[in-house]
Amino acid sequence: MGLQVDGDANPTAPQVVVDFQTHPSRYRHWRLSVDGPVATLTMDVDERGGLVPGYELKLNSYDLGVDIELHDAVQRLRFEHPGVRAVVLTGGKEKNFCAGANIRMLASSAHGWKVNFCKFTNETRNAMEDATAHSGQSYLAALNGTAAGGGYELALACEHIMLVDDRSSTVSLPELALLGVLPGTGGLTRVVDKRHVRRDVADYFATRPEGVGGAKAVRWRLVDEVVSRSAWTDTVAGRAAEFAARSPRPGAVRGVELAALAKERTADAISYRYVRATLDRSLGCVDITVRGPDTDAPAAIAGLHERGAAFWTLAMTRELDDLILDLRTNEPELGTWVWRTEGDAARVLAHDALLLEHPDDWLAGEIVHYLKRTLKRLDVTSRSLIALIEPGSCFAGSLLELALAADRSFHLAGVFEEVDPDAEPGAVTVGAMNLGPLPMGNGLTRLATRFAGDADALAAAGATAGRPTLAADAERLGLVTFAPDDIDWAEEVRMAIEERSSYSPDALTGLEANFRFPGPETMETKIFGRLAAWQNWIFHRPNASGPDGALCRFGTGQRADFDRKRV
Amino acid sequence: MGLQVDGDANPTAPQVVVDFQTHPSRYRHWRLSVDGPVATLTMDVDERGGLVPGYELKLNSYDLGVDIELHDAVQRLRFEHPGVRAVVLTGGKEKNFCAGANIRMLASSAHGWKVNFCKFTNETRNAMEDATAHSGQSYLAALNGTAAGGGYELALACEHIMLVDDRSSTVSLPELALLGVLPGTGGLTRVVDKRHVRRDVADYFATRPEGVGGAKAVRWRLVDEVVSRSAWTDTVAGRAAEFAARSPRPGAVRGVELAALAKERTADAISYRYVRATLDRSLGCVDITVRGPDTDAPAAIAGLHERGAAFWTLAMTRELDDLILDLRTNEPELGTWVWRTEGDAARVLAHDALLLEHPDDWLAGEIVHYLKRTLKRLDVTSRSLIALIEPGSCFAGSLLELALAADRSFHLAGVFEEVDPDAEPGAVTVGAMNLGPLPMGNGLTRLATRFAGDADALAAAGATAGRPTLAADAERLGLVTFAPDDIDWAEEVRMAIEERSSYSPDALTGLEANFRFPGPETMETKIFGRLAAWQNWIFHRPNASGPDGALCRFGTGQRADFDRKRV
Repeated sequence: MGLQVDGDANPTAPQVVVDFQTHPSRYRHWRLSVDGPVATLTMDVDERGGLVPGYELKLNSYDLGVDIELHDAVQRLRFEHPGVRAVVLTGGKEKNFCAGANIRMLASSAHGWKVNFCKFTNETRNAMEDATAHSGQSYLAALNGTAAGGGYELALACEHIMLVDDRSSTVSLPELALLGVLPGTGGLTRVVDKRHVRRDVADYFATRPEGVGGAKAVRWRLVDEVVSRSAWTDTVAGRAAEFAARSPRPGAVRGVELAALAKERTADAISYRYVRATLDRSLGCVDITVRGPDTDAPAAIAGLHERGAAFWTLAMTRELDDLILDLRTNEPELGTWVWRTEGDAARVLAHDALLLEHPDDWLAGEIVHYLKRTLKRLDVTSRSLIALIEPGSCFAGSLLELALAADRSFHLAGVFEEVDPDAEPGAVTVGAMNLGPLPMGNGLTRLATRFAGDADALAAAGATAGRPTLAADAERLGLVTFAPDDIDWAEEVRMAIEERSSYSPDALTGLEANFRFPGPETMETKIFGRLAAWQNWIFHRPNASGPDGALCRFGTGQRADFDRKRV
Repeated sequence: MGLQVDGDANPTAPQVVVDFQTHPSRYRHWRLSVDGPVATLTMDVDERGGLVPGYELKLNSYDLGVDIELHDAVQRLRFEHPGVRAVVLTGGKEKNFCAGANIRMLASSAHGWKVNFCKFTNETRNAMEDATAHSGQSYLAALNGTAAGGGYELALACEHIMLVDDRSSTVSLPELALLGVLPGTGGLTRVVDKRHVRRDVADYFATRPEGVGGAKAVRWRLVDEVVSRSAWTDTVAGRAAEFAARSPRPGAVRGVELAALAKERTADAISYRYVRATLDRSLGCVDITVRGPDTDAPAAIAGLHERGAAFWTLAMTRELDDLILDLRTNEPELGTWVWRTEGDAARVLAHDALLLEHPDDWLAGEIVHYLKRTLKRLDVTSRSLIALIEPGSCFAGSLLELALAADRSFHLAGVFEEVDPDAEPGAVTVGAMNLGPLPMGNGLTRLATRFAGDADALAAAGATAGRPTLAADAERLGLVTFAPDDIDWAEEVRMAIEERSSYSPDALTGLEANFRFPGPETMETKIFGRLAAWQNWIFHRPNASGPDGALCRFGTGQRADFDRKRV
């Protein structure tokens, strides 16, 4: 993880350009080992390896840098290790599995940094659950010592939790009692909604900083089993083997290596092979263009495996994923992302079709699930998303999702007469990718979310599948927001972008978080919507983050001085 | 609405003791008229009638005092006017229906006041929807002029929205663009989840401060119909008659008058006939005792009508409702509410049975729905709720809901040997009231919410219906959290309460808001959980509430100075 530190020794807003690309050979905090169908991910944090100066990562506590490595490992296990069917997550320190997010780091970070950190760690934990649910790669937490706060939340993202029974190791959520904040990575939601801990028991547990261990932890459903130290190694291995045996994942086939992305980053542009972004700091916006495939799709599924990481959908998705993470973390003042595509819609659809016509191919499945996860990142990104559909664009199938994820879309009716009067007008094309394989966190497709409560409109939009739809029809069908013509286009688009930069960034974040998820809620939308919103608020309150608040007073021996008024 | 003003002329934290009791004869801001099956509620705000000094309620804008009158009217229409089947909500000013919550009031209020104000106004709008859904008393918004912000949100709570078509009247949500905050009373949620406005259209609408009128407002589903000025009176009357004709509500039967509550309020106690509260300011808690019925239930339903507002369930519920509102608004520093009951469990159950055995009796229905709404207030109250089950208590049926709503409950195993060794041990009794008629905002009973994801435990608890359950069994069945005996009781209870006062009040609010609603979400839980949390955060940010924020700059001619970083 290369990073430049531009800030001072103890910055309140970390001044680094964070790089989300890494590789197991460069991990400082994790060890990844693979033994047949079982992989082991061992957390062994380098105290002096913090991403930003000013804190030490004691007791296996973590910061964004530690989580970037975890994210990389989770991702590589999907693509590079098709033979791995169970992943044991354990700790490399004595007596202590993981103490959670580093408190000094939290106390010294700016508000936006904390919120973005929680968002990314949440996404990584969701990715572990996604691997378990969809990829036959089950995560088991082998808690070889105490798992506190974020350490226990990491375990909660696993399918099975084992805790060593040594009369001292516990699981706990001490954030409320010790820090005056909430567990920030889904713990409150998973305790009740995933593990079905009774809500009053959960309340007691989450206000008991010393935590719970032994038989009581099992009885309260906080862990699945406690295991004595003497039986530990065998039991963990046995349980991993059991989970592996149940997995539908293929045996020893060859994986796809995720080589480093060809990425160029300058002050005003970020570019990859298929994705490029221009940063407009005066307008506060980013122009992003995603290119379609530059070759035809392979005729048969073997061609997908031959191309591997060079297969357009996978290559483009990796670039998109990295760009989203980069912009979210490093460019918080660029509040609007404007999306364009360029290329051949038929080729996009052909790549989609190859993936979807082979549901039993493990690699095809991994690519679709990865695209799904990447698009989900957009849905929870606190930036205004605007899609522009113009001549030469290819908003079809998988790339149409970018327009469907947008808060607003403009579709040029006709062509730019002054540029190319003979161009083909831009179209949007609904494809199979839009009708199921890429659900949002709420469990619905973006199309179904868009037409929530209007089954007729949804059916009409779905009925266009496979056919390009021009602007007037797209507007009428509700596939796009507006369809201005050449005369109005520049002014309407400019106004939309400028208006967005003139509004309160906070209010926009709240507005978008509410409008993007009409309809049903899931554990995932609760974590990103409800839990995250409460945590944002609490992080911001003087009771947590003020000079006399709990976060700053932690470890000083002084108690926090609370404003006792309930809000 | 009697109120004492203790603060200065322009307080940042209003120093008033707010009284939620009022009567149509004392309304300053609304006129309630009844004409057969149709009532008309006309909003005609007295500019100089603000609850707190320091602002004028111009343009039919509202503050808490205006909404207390609306709440009173909605409530009286249910009980005092069984013949009313449709309620027309309209405005008494020219050209302007309602400008929403008063901005000067918001800008000069403390954070907690704003949040509490939004909570109460949300509850009142939900009560309008509850009347429409469950009582055959449909609300129709007759927008005789522009409905902006909270004015439009008031309309969104109605079943049918009519807007006058005069080329200038619009509906709008200008909060984001003009004030840097969100619409605070459910507008964002209702636009997409109730009216099914497409989310990108909703985004455009909510960033367009001038709003939308005429045919476009209908096309975008923002209103149901636009009506010319000349046809206005007839169309509104006709539509009200249509809704009234569809209602199953009884004809001209006698209503039940809601006479003023006998309430005593001193510095340290609030008492009514069946409910009394002792305020412990040093511990930061309130001891609340609810007494069961002091007479047997009437043998027949006619007896319910004879007793009217004196019928125990109705009388007790009114007192409880008033106490909750009083404590929430006037005693924000008392962060823990400790619940006890005393009386005869059999009488509680007999009162419940009378109500539930007559589902077609309008008054029985109204009482049950009112109890339901009152208990829902508890679920969204930002106070820690602890229930104590002791000898002499009557946590049965409707009163058991208080323990089920609590974050934690303690059930004494046995008796207090030193007090009365011969007492009957306290019991909890599940009754029909716990098994359906009193759902939470998430659509589930408190019992089903408690055992979310554990159908066996829910069935086992339900199987005890009608039988008292003693402490050990209640703990085993999960009906209570803990069952300490006489020796441990005082210490355990004391520690639980003291611990609660030592934690961050904000973190407790977030914790409780998350744990109280496992399982499914509804429009209502989204409004109180997700939307409210985002709004809490936004209200608190300098971009809204700082000296250069949008709320304070509003109306000064100066634009807000935003920190542009997206969070």
